Amino acid sequence: MSKNLQVLLANRPTGEVTEANFEIVERDIPTAGPGQILVRNHWLSLDPYMRGRMAASKSYAASVEIGEVMVGGTVGEVIASQNPKFAVGDFIVGSLGWQHYAVSNGDGLAKVDPKLVPLSAYLGAVGMPGATAWIGLLEHCAPKCGETVVVSAASGAVGAIVGQLAKMQGCRAVGIAGGKEKCAYVVDELGFDACVDYKAGNLYQDLKAACPAGIDAYFENVGGVTMDTVFRLLNPFSRVALCGMIADYNLPEAYGVRMMRSLLVNRVKLQGFIVFDRQDLYPRAIAQLGSLVASGRLKYRETVADGLRSAPAAFIGLLAGRNFGKQLVKLV
Amino acid sequence: MSKNLQVLLANRPTGEVTEANFEIVERDIPTAGPGQILVRNHWLSLDPYMRGRMAASKSYAASVEIGEVMVGGTVGEVIASQNPKFAVGDFIVGSLGWQHYAVSNGDGLAKVDPKLVPLSAYLGAVGMPGATAWIGLLEHCAPKCGETVVVSAASGAVGAIVGQLAKMQGCRAVGIAGGKEKCAYVVDELGFDACVDYKAGNLYQDLKAACPAGIDAYFENVGGVTMDTVFRLLNPFSRVALCGMIADYNLPEAYGVRMMRSLLVNRVKLQGFIVFDRQDLYPRAIAQLGSLVASGRLKYRETVADGLRSAPAAFIGLLAGRNFGKQLVKLV
Repeated sequence: MSKNLQVLLANRPTGEVTEANFEIVERDIPTAGPGQILVRNHWLSLDPYMRGRMAASKSYAASVEIGEVMVGGTVGEVIASQNPKFAVGDFIVGSLGWQHYAVSNGDGLAKVDPKLVPLSAYLGAVGMPGATAWIGLLEHCAPKCGETVVVSAASGAVGAIVGQLAKMQGCRAVGIAGGKEKCAYVVDELGFDACVDYKAGNLYQDLKAACPAGIDAYFENVGGVTMDTVFRLLNPFSRVALCGMIADYNLPEAYGVRMMRSLLVNRVKLQGFIVFDRQDLYPRAIAQLGSLVASGRLKYRETVADGLRSAPAAFIGLLAGRNFGKQLVKLV
Repeated sequence: MSKNLQVLLANRPTGEVTEANFEIVERDIPTAGPGQILVRNHWLSLDPYMRGRMAASKSYAASVEIGEVMVGGTVGEVIASQNPKFAVGDFIVGSLGWQHYAVSNGDGLAKVDPKLVPLSAYLGAVGMPGATAWIGLLEHCAPKCGETVVVSAASGAVGAIVGQLAKMQGCRAVGIAGGKEKCAYVVDELGFDACVDYKAGNLYQDLKAACPAGIDAYFENVGGVTMDTVFRLLNPFSRVALCGMIADYNLPEAYGVRMMRSLLVNRVKLQGFIVFDRQDLYPRAIAQLGSLVASGRLKYRETVADGLRSAPAAFIGLLAGRNFGKQLVKLV
C-alpha cells in the first residue's frame, strides 16, 4: 500500500450517527521530520467517547473539526525514526487516529511489549478501557469485600474488567448487559455472580433479585433509564462512579433522571470521572492489568472489524450495543 | 395551662400537605419518672425534612406513625428532674416534638446557654440548620477562596448560613431565592454577592450572568428544575452538596433531571448528606456558629408562628416557601 487511508469527520451527526458523517480518503504517506517518527498503525480502538468528539458541544476534550481525521487510540509499529527515544521495530500505543500511518514527535506515546500480552490488548484490558475500569472501581467505587458492585455494559471493554476486579476485591459482582448471550458470557466466562438482561424488560425486579443486599457501588457506563433504575436500589453510603452515558449520546434530549432523591436519602457519593485526569494512577493501573492478563486471571473479549473502511459501520454498531466486548479495527 | 397540647399525624398526605393531615389534642401533662426530666418546650422548629417523616416511604429515618406526635426540634426548660445530669431551670435543645410538654431520659438533649445567643437561635443558625450549612459547605462543597458558591433557598435557615460562611471563605456567594424581597435581603442584609430570583422566570440566563466564572460549588436545598439549571453551569471538578429537594417533596412523581451528563463531562463530585451522620463535626460546627452569631458576624432571620395550633399552617407555608428565614413556632 503506497497511500495513507484515513477516515475524516465529514459533518456532525444530528441524532444517530450514520456512515454519511464520515469520509474515507487516500492521502500520501507522511514523512518523519527531525525529532519525529512514522508509525504504521496495526489496530484502531473504537470507544463511546468518540461520539462526544463528533459533536460541537462542550465536552471534556475538544471536538474533532470537520475535515479532520477522527480521533482514536491506536497501537502500531515504528517504521521510520528521527527521534532517539524510538527505534524502528518498536511497538507503541497512543492516539494516532483513524488512519494507517501517522507522524508523531512521540508525545503521548508509550512503548509496549507484544510478548507480554497480545498487541490489541493494549487498546483494551491493558489500555485506556482497562485503566478506566481500574480507576473508577478502585478509586471512586472503593468497594469493600462483601459489598455488592453493579456495572452496566458489563460485557463491554470497561464493564468486563470492572466486574472481574470487583470479584478479586471479594465483592458480589452483578452486571447489566443486553441479551442472553452477553449475560451468559458475563457470568460463565468472566465469573460475575449474576448478570441482568435489560432487554428482557424487567430491569428493576431482575436487578433487585440479583442484589438481595442492595447495591453498595455502581459503575455507570450507560445512563438513562438504567441509571434511574439502579438509583432505586442503592444502599445508604453507596458510591456511584459516573464513567459514561452511552444511552443518551444519540438522543436529541437527555433522559430525565427521577431518582435523584435516592442520592440524598442514602447519602450517596457520585463522582464523574475521566481516566485521563488520573495520570498519577494510570501507570500503576496498566502495570497491574498487564500482569493480570498475562497470568490469565483477567479475561477479555474482542469484536474485530476488518480494515479501516469498516470502521464507521463498526462504530455505529458499538453505539447500538452490537459489539461483544472490546470493539477493534484490524488495520494490518 | 394544665393540659399538654400536642399535634399528631392524623393521616399521610397524598400530594400536598393539608391541615387535615394533622390532629390537635389535649392530653394530661406527663410526669417525670426515675432518671427522667419533664421539659416545657419554648420553641418548636419547622423544617422541610418533616415532610419525609409524614410519608410511609423509606427515607433516612423512620416515618412518624399515624396517631403519633409529629417529630420536631425543640428548645425548652427543665421544669422537673429526676435525672442528676439536668437541673430545674436548665435550658435544653433536642427533638421533643410538636407539643408543649415532654418527658425524656435525657438522651439526645444538649444544654444551651440563653445568654450567649437568643434561645430560638439554637433551632436555627446555632442548631441543626446551621450545622447542616457548616458541614455541607465546608466538608462537601469544600470551597477555595476565589471560587463561586451557589446555594438554593438562599434566604432560608440553611441557605442564609451557607452563603455567609462562603463569603468568610473568600468565595463569591450567589443565592437563588423566590421573589424580589428575599433576594434583596440575601444581598443587602446577608452580604451575598448576588441573588437570583427564580420566580422571575429566567433562571438560567440570570444565574449565568451572576456567575461569570461558572459555578465551582453548589449547595442544593431545592432540587427539581433548579438543580437541572445549575448543573448546566457547573465548572470542571466542581462539587455538589445534596442537602434537600423540597421542590420534589409534594410532587406525585419527581422531576426528571436531564443534565446528568454535566456531572460526567465536568467530573463533578455530588454528595448526598444528612447532618446527623456527622456527629464527629457537629459540636465543632455548633461552637463556631455560636461564636459567629454572638459576635454579630453571622446574621439570620426568623418567621415566628404564634402558638402550637398555628404549626400545621406554618408548616404548609414553609413547604410553599412562604416563610422568610427560619420558621419557628413560639410555644410560651
